[in-house]
Amino acid sequence: MKKIGVLTSGGDAPGMNAAVRAVVRKALYHNLEVAGIYYGYQGLIEGRIESLDRGAVGDIIQRGGTKLHSARCLEFKTEEGQLKAIEQMKKHGIEGLVIIGGDGSYRGALELTKRGFPCVGVPGTIDNDIPGTDYTIGFDTALNTVIECIDKIRDTATSHERSFIIEVMGRDAGDLALWAGLAGGAETILIPEVPHNLDDLVTRLEQGYERGKKHSIIIVAEGVMSASDLAKKLLEKNIETRVSVLGHIQRGGSPTARDRVLASTFAARAVELLIENRGGLAVGMRNHVVVDYDLEEAFKKERNTDLSMYTLSKELSI
Amino acid sequence: MKKIGVLTSGGDAPGMNAAVRAVVRKALYHNLEVAGIYYGYQGLIEGRIESLDRGAVGDIIQRGGTKLHSARCLEFKTEEGQLKAIEQMKKHGIEGLVIIGGDGSYRGALELTKRGFPCVGVPGTIDNDIPGTDYTIGFDTALNTVIECIDKIRDTATSHERSFIIEVMGRDAGDLALWAGLAGGAETILIPEVPHNLDDLVTRLEQGYERGKKHSIIIVAEGVMSASDLAKKLLEKNIETRVSVLGHIQRGGSPTARDRVLASTFAARAVELLIENRGGLAVGMRNHVVVDYDLEEAFKKERNTDLSMYTLSKELSI
Amino acid sequence: MKKIGVLTSGGDAPGMNAAVRAVVRKALYHNLEVAGIYYGYQGLIEGRIESLDRGAVGDIIQRGGTKLHSARCLEFKTEEGQLKAIEQMKKHGIEGLVIIGGDGSYRGALELTKRGFPCVGVPGTIDNDIPGTDYTIGFDTALNTVIECIDKIRDTATSHERSFIIEVMGRDAGDLALWAGLAGGAETILIPEVPHNLDDLVTRLEQGYERGKKHSIIIVAEGVMSASDLAKKLLEKNIETRVSVLGHIQRGGSPTARDRVLASTFAARAVELLIENRGGLAVGMRNHVVVDYDLEEAFKKERNTDLSMYTLSKELSI
Amino acid sequence: MKKIGVLTSGGDAPGMNAAVRAVVRKALYHNLEVAGIYYGYQGLIEGRIESLDRGAVGDIIQRGGTKLHSARCLEFKTEEGQLKAIEQMKKHGIEGLVIIGGDGSYRGALELTKRGFPCVGVPGTIDNDIPGTDYTIGFDTALNTVIECIDKIRDTATSHERSFIIEVMGRDAGDLALWAGLAGGAETILIPEVPHNLDDLVTRLEQGYERGKKHSIIIVAEGVMSASDLAKKLLEKNIETRVSVLGHIQRGGSPTARDRVLASTFAARAVELLIENRGGLAVGMRNHVVVDYDLEEAFKKERNTDLSMYTLSKELSI
Repeated sequence: MKKIGVLTSGGDAPGMNAAVRAVVRKALYHNLEVAGIYYGYQGLIEGRIESLDRGAVGDIIQRGGTKLHSARCLEFKTEEGQLKAIEQMKKHGIEGLVIIGGDGSYRGALELTKRGFPCVGVPGTIDNDIPGTDYTIGFDTALNTVIECIDKIRDTATSHERSFIIEVMGRDAGDLALWAGLAGGAETILIPEVPHNLDDLVTRLEQGYERGKKHSIIIVAEGVMSASDLAKKLLEKNIETRVSVLGHIQRGGSPTARDRVLASTFAARAVELLIENRGGLAVGMRNHVVVDYDLEEAFKKERNTDLSMYTLSKELSI
Repeated sequence: MKKIGVLTSGGDAPGMNAAVRAVVRKALYHNLEVAGIYYGYQGLIEGRIESLDRGAVGDIIQRGGTKLHSARCLEFKTEEGQLKAIEQMKKHGIEGLVIIGGDGSYRGALELTKRGFPCVGVPGTIDNDIPGTDYTIGFDTALNTVIECIDKIRDTATSHERSFIIEVMGRDAGDLALWAGLAGGAETILIPEVPHNLDDLVTRLEQGYERGKKHSIIIVAEGVMSASDLAKKLLEKNIETRVSVLGHIQRGGSPTARDRVLASTFAARAVELLIENRGGLAVGMRNHVVVDYDLEEAFKKERNTDLSMYTLSKELSI
Repeated sequence: MKKIGVLTSGGDAPGMNAAVRAVVRKALYHNLEVAGIYYGYQGLIEGRIESLDRGAVGDIIQRGGTKLHSARCLEFKTEEGQLKAIEQMKKHGIEGLVIIGGDGSYRGALELTKRGFPCVGVPGTIDNDIPGTDYTIGFDTALNTVIECIDKIRDTATSHERSFIIEVMGRDAGDLALWAGLAGGAETILIPEVPHNLDDLVTRLEQGYERGKKHSIIIVAEGVMSASDLAKKLLEKNIETRVSVLGHIQRGGSPTARDRVLASTFAARAVELLIENRGGLAVGMRNHVVVDYDLEEAFKKERNTDLSMYTLSKELSI
Repeated sequence: MKKIGVLTSGGDAPGMNAAVRAVVRKALYHNLEVAGIYYGYQGLIEGRIESLDRGAVGDIIQRGGTKLHSARCLEFKTEEGQLKAIEQMKKHGIEGLVIIGGDGSYRGALELTKRGFPCVGVPGTIDNDIPGTDYTIGFDTALNTVIECIDKIRDTATSHERSFIIEVMGRDAGDLALWAGLAGGAETILIPEVPHNLDDLVTRLEQGYERGKKHSIIIVAEGVMSASDLAKKLLEKNIETRVSVLGHIQRGGSPTARDRVLASTFAARAVELLIENRGGLAVGMRNHVVVDYDLEEAFKKERNTDLSMYTLSKELSI
């Protein structure tokens, strides 16, 4: 392989730039050329492609967002779109691709691989919801952003003895809510993986107040319900709460050290796989070890949420 | 005067603890005793009062919220409530009070002063909306919190080329929105002090896109309208935006250097005024100088919003 | 077991408070009483012991340092000191201990266990240098503090095209330097685990400048040599650098989410071990799993530094 | 005037990029062209000049350092150097200049103005040491960086009951030390503007320990003496301290809201002055109002340090 491409796809995540940098530097180290594809699969179809040299990725390791931009692309889901993409890759001499993004992005990677262009997926999403890897790039940063927000809200919660419901991202995966709840000292955590019972929640809160708690912090993953819906339900039970929806700020910001290291390590492995002409794979971290695995696994496999953290959180919030 | 009291009232603001610390230390320096009144006027009525020594305010200068807690108190608006408060002050030997809070809190300070207990108001609110002072304690911290959020959202705005509406606090005062908009490089700022015209806003955004802008950041003070209402109106004009409501995180966090200095300076002046047996006053900053002025001014006076910043923001966002 | 004690020992580390909180809450959850021992082993000898209830550890999960204080204690290394400690434990009805600190603190834990008082060690040190665990409490926070400093220094390095040597903590362990170097995009990392050759370093820097690098960032662990010594040696080779010694700021600050989760998890496991009357153990994380192991292992075992990160860092800094 | 230039000179300061952005945007708003001069006066001599459009200054308002780079330039102090600079300005059609930097940079601005090319100085330095303005761009950010470091060090100071000496920047001006000391709750502040007496300092520290203080934080401006020299002197008096030299991290980082607003306001005024063909001036802030004044004032005038803060700091640290 003489030239590889790199693109970012799906929601932006802190550390994507660190991953792009590592793809470029690692490839250059092995005397590969690198083409940067802007605006994800859409840009690939449209040929928004530029050569990336060492300097092009200087001073970006610490930046949030993605220098390569990202975009949704319905066209790429069609055969026509994929053929256009391949045409562009041929035109630019791109022989393999590193795709940084969520598991939605992995489907495209699989299609291109099947059509003879080896692609490797690098997990980049704050949701930490990609099967086959314990961590995704961006999760640690988003988690710390959430924690900082909880710490701020606790100042008011403590000062005014008010209870708060904080809604965090996570449609299907409760990792962000779970980790943030444990790290933020939340009294209650609602995640999609664990069915909740409103009466139990109310009882729990009331018992807390009886034990002398002056305020409670409740973390709810958006996939369970909205914070304002929860507040309404609690109000019906005479429990008054304030609501904070953290929203988009969870996506941005300078990546943490861990996300930068994860991004660098994953990206380097992805380049190594392409050098070995191995596509159709995703890289990940399992039990502290960098691994690669079939992209299809990322679609089929169930994620195991570590519910010991959920239990621990309950015990520590007595 | 031998013993003074200190309480925090209204919404908590970063720097209140620094102000409490300075009241205590400054008073002790002048051989006054200090009584800490917990939970604002409510606590004053209920006698939730404790002596504060040097150590009691150690290691709090950097903490958000208020160690003395805050609370709403309808009872204090009645004569009966005020008489109860005075009874408590007599009982505890408190001869004067420093009241840290918003201008709502100043009314109580005025009442007590009229009844023979000199009170001095210290402006503590993130809204920067107290007439008679250029700055209030907490504004600078809240402003920097907003800026950090804007910076994070800009990562996504840039990566995805999406426009965002960010709703910040400010019912009647647009200071936070205005400063944040200018410091955050926002394209458009909507504040209560300046009437807005939706058509102009749409034109402005469209012209921006035509000039090559890929995304816009719009800051709206909550007093103008909610971000989601604005988003709906823009969508009717075919301008798609995402919405972020910063909410309660704007109140918390460790105070900035400036808020700590302001808090320390204001609180020290308040103690000096009480030593001189002068009550019915508020302290403030005007043109870079610490001043004191009649509490009534804080109710009557109009605030002048510096609209040169508004104009400048428009010019710089071309 | 009806009552356990908890103390922090050795250098303070962010997350120690989260660990103390978790010890207390987990123990209370299992109906154990908890005694807080202040000032480490010294306080144990002197009987500086107070009962800790739920509220005593409220609002500390996010605080740096240690609420229980820490201190060096030579006396505890003597038999006499240990007997005094045991006397105090008997007097206060403490049947087992959780010791949060570095491996120096583990020796005391082993002695007390041998004398019939089961102790469990929880690894708390920013140096990440305790054999038997992949991570220690405080490392992740210190790492992010270092990264933020590197990011700041890079602003100047880039603006002025100057090279910098940044000295970070780490007498025997290069983990902090290694992770920070990789995450900070440093050109060169010097750690105790890898012998360095000054001529190679000079060649490497010169080649970088020839390739167009305008500046270099060199991270050196204090255990290798001081930044100023390195600067002198490089100056002899006509390479001008500036020096920054990060020093004590690496120890403080609010713990990251990960350190809080690690602290909570470790502490909870430690309490479980004591409930099972198992002492002489340390808890740790190995390959993403919480483990416990003989304290003696912590003294005998060699730590394996993951040098793949070192190699990767070199490749990415071309 | 049809085209103006902008350069940054001297030590980099957070907010310089916000100032460059504002120069460009404000000038474009008034239909002026803008030339960016890279590497300060050195770049002006060498013709390292590029046109800056709206997009060239996008997404930099929040960045530390200076996108235009900075450099020392001895050659510009000679007539020959200045003539070369003028030749370049003629060649590029640059009719006026905005110079962002310290008062050292102002001398060059004055020379060029005298030779017929109007220049306006914008105060950019973290030291806050430019006569004629209450604040310089970068001071507020550096101050908050110092405060964050003090907060971190206090975690260790409190946990271990150790005293610390923290050395901050400031050769001739103690503003950073003074503000940081007051905002950081330091016990003692040593600044160049106030002669210190070691015996008094020792007495003060000893009295503090006698009153029950467990630790002290001493802030020393580098212009007074080095932290390690002070530590040695205190050790001779049996006062043990630890030392932290904050160094270069004080220069970097994302600018605070205030620095961005200050930078934007100053830069806009500078452009207005050039439009009016007025050179030989500096802009500044006096008593909360933006002013302009003769550059020569910046050399002749004495700065008044507000020693009321010094006195207050002493009173509050009892």
